[in-house]
Amino acid sequence: MTLATPPSAMAQKALDFISSLQETICKSFLTFESKEAFFNDVWERPHNMGGGISCIFEDGKLFEKAGVNISAISGSFGSEKEKAMFLSLLKQLQSPAINLDQAQYFATGISLVCHPINPFIPTTHMNYRYFEIQSSESTLWWFGGGCDLTPYYLDLKLITHFHQCLKAACDLIDPHYYPMYKKACDTYFYLPHRHEHRGVGGIFFDYLNKQSQDHYFHLISACGNTFLESYLPFIDTYKDKDYDEDDTLWQRYRRGRYVEFNLLHDRGTKFGLQTNGRIESIFMSLPKHVLWTYNEALLTHSHQELLNVISSPRDWV
Amino acid sequence: MTLATPPSAMAQKALDFISSLQETICKSFLTFESKEAFFNDVWERPHNMGGGISCIFEDGKLFEKAGVNISAISGSFGSEKEKAMFLSLLKQLQSPAINLDQAQYFATGISLVCHPINPFIPTTHMNYRYFEIQSSESTLWWFGGGCDLTPYYLDLKLITHFHQCLKAACDLIDPHYYPMYKKACDTYFYLPHRHEHRGVGGIFFDYLNKQSQDHYFHLISACGNTFLESYLPFIDTYKDKDYDEDDTLWQRYRRGRYVEFNLLHDRGTKFGLQTNGRIESIFMSLPKHVLWTYNEALLTHSHQELLNVISSPRDWV
Repeated sequence: MTLATPPSAMAQKALDFISSLQETICKSFLTFESKEAFFNDVWERPHNMGGGISCIFEDGKLFEKAGVNISAISGSFGSEKEKAMFLSLLKQLQSPAINLDQAQYFATGISLVCHPINPFIPTTHMNYRYFEIQSSESTLWWFGGGCDLTPYYLDLKLITHFHQCLKAACDLIDPHYYPMYKKACDTYFYLPHRHEHRGVGGIFFDYLNKQSQDHYFHLISACGNTFLESYLPFIDTYKDKDYDEDDTLWQRYRRGRYVEFNLLHDRGTKFGLQTNGRIESIFMSLPKHVLWTYNEALLTHSHQELLNVISSPRDWV
Repeated sequence: MTLATPPSAMAQKALDFISSLQETICKSFLTFESKEAFFNDVWERPHNMGGGISCIFEDGKLFEKAGVNISAISGSFGSEKEKAMFLSLLKQLQSPAINLDQAQYFATGISLVCHPINPFIPTTHMNYRYFEIQSSESTLWWFGGGCDLTPYYLDLKLITHFHQCLKAACDLIDPHYYPMYKKACDTYFYLPHRHEHRGVGGIFFDYLNKQSQDHYFHLISACGNTFLESYLPFIDTYKDKDYDEDDTLWQRYRRGRYVEFNLLHDRGTKFGLQTNGRIESIFMSLPKHVLWTYNEALLTHSHQELLNVISSPRDWV
């Protein structure tokens, strides 16, 4: 069996939601995208430790490269190094110590990254996940995730709409959440060596477990369910918009920042590489075509508005 | 003044060699390359702390992106963080402890990376550097550097020639050096997540200070001086060779590995970013056009010979 069997009612609920969200998003994308660009990649980990279903779009009408991937994995903690790494992660939870020697983990998540061909459509990233560790004495669990936008050109109205959707979803659960998670997103997606944020932000959270499981399940399902509403207007508005070689150069140059962030800073990438994760899934987030140029000023001089926006985050709603 | 003033006879000798090597290499490249693709970028650090001269080639007849850069910088150790970082580096020297509070450093080096347009010409990297720290009690110094090759297609004869040149240069100083530095190069330029070496190696050394300054100056000058002899045959042989879109796709895909290595593993990149170094110089090494694809097997299936060579280093001479 590809996906790991959920060990609890919440694990099952999270996996069901994640599977259904993947299906909904892919169906929607396939109304714009050619079927030839779609690739359904089912993969399994050895020793019955689960796997994933990657829905990949590459070189299509709409997407240069995109992935809408889910996974459900399980197992025990192998090496001492792996245990030490997880124990250091678990410190974020402020939970009582847990002995990982006999413990079993289960993790399920949806991870989406879309790099459209048209430079007027932003890159977007979305990820929601549920993690559970069962030892003989106790069960630990937490939720994490987020969604953010990396435009090449600014459409202030649609960026505001994107943030409004996320705010409305968060507000359903707690009106304090959107401002907190928006700020966390701006803080996390930051490239110190460029003095730039990765894009115009969104929301970002991790290690959520202070409230009930249902509370946070409600949060990730509301946020996940608003994804299409938040992002499709960019596709609708710009999929047929003309662009020229300079627009594509600018897009590929900015995509370099995406690579810099993911390889230099992204926790998920680091974690994946350290735990010997599946390379295709870890690097799914990287854009297809990227360029680095020495004399950046030649490209950036006509894009000051975007550069101003990503140099200091603003309040969009 | 752009370049820092050398504080010692050896510092002056190293800088003279490095300047002259830059001139020789650029003159040679300009016999193949169009002058329009050449860009001489002189930069300075604030507060009279030196600077550099970057000779950049971009979008030329021969080079997609190349840099032949020198720098000579000096200063004192600023923050406690910076001091701690340097003290941890200095451990590699097995020298007596030094108090960095009142110390002055001087560093000069040449750094070359060439990414040719023609996929049949390998990417190459070369770097030789001299570092000196003077405190009131003592002077520390060391040499470092190396040169290596990253081909997209294999020309076994020319790769062997490249290694033979480096061996001949090392042998002038000590016949033990080439095997040691060749092995260090294979070890250093390794991508664990890909189970691949970056290319077909070369030589790599750092923190050399056990013998005399002249001994190591002789080593880096012999190695630096053999660069053109080792690499030009690739240009001569392949600069006019036909290639098609598939060759370029393969080249850009392999260039992704170069980016992965430099952003995930390269010590120079890490050091540069941590010390708030000059971004243009740090990222000069990145290729211009790069691609990542999800289904790598579609590209790799016809390139098994290269993949075998980079998966386990061989003895070239």
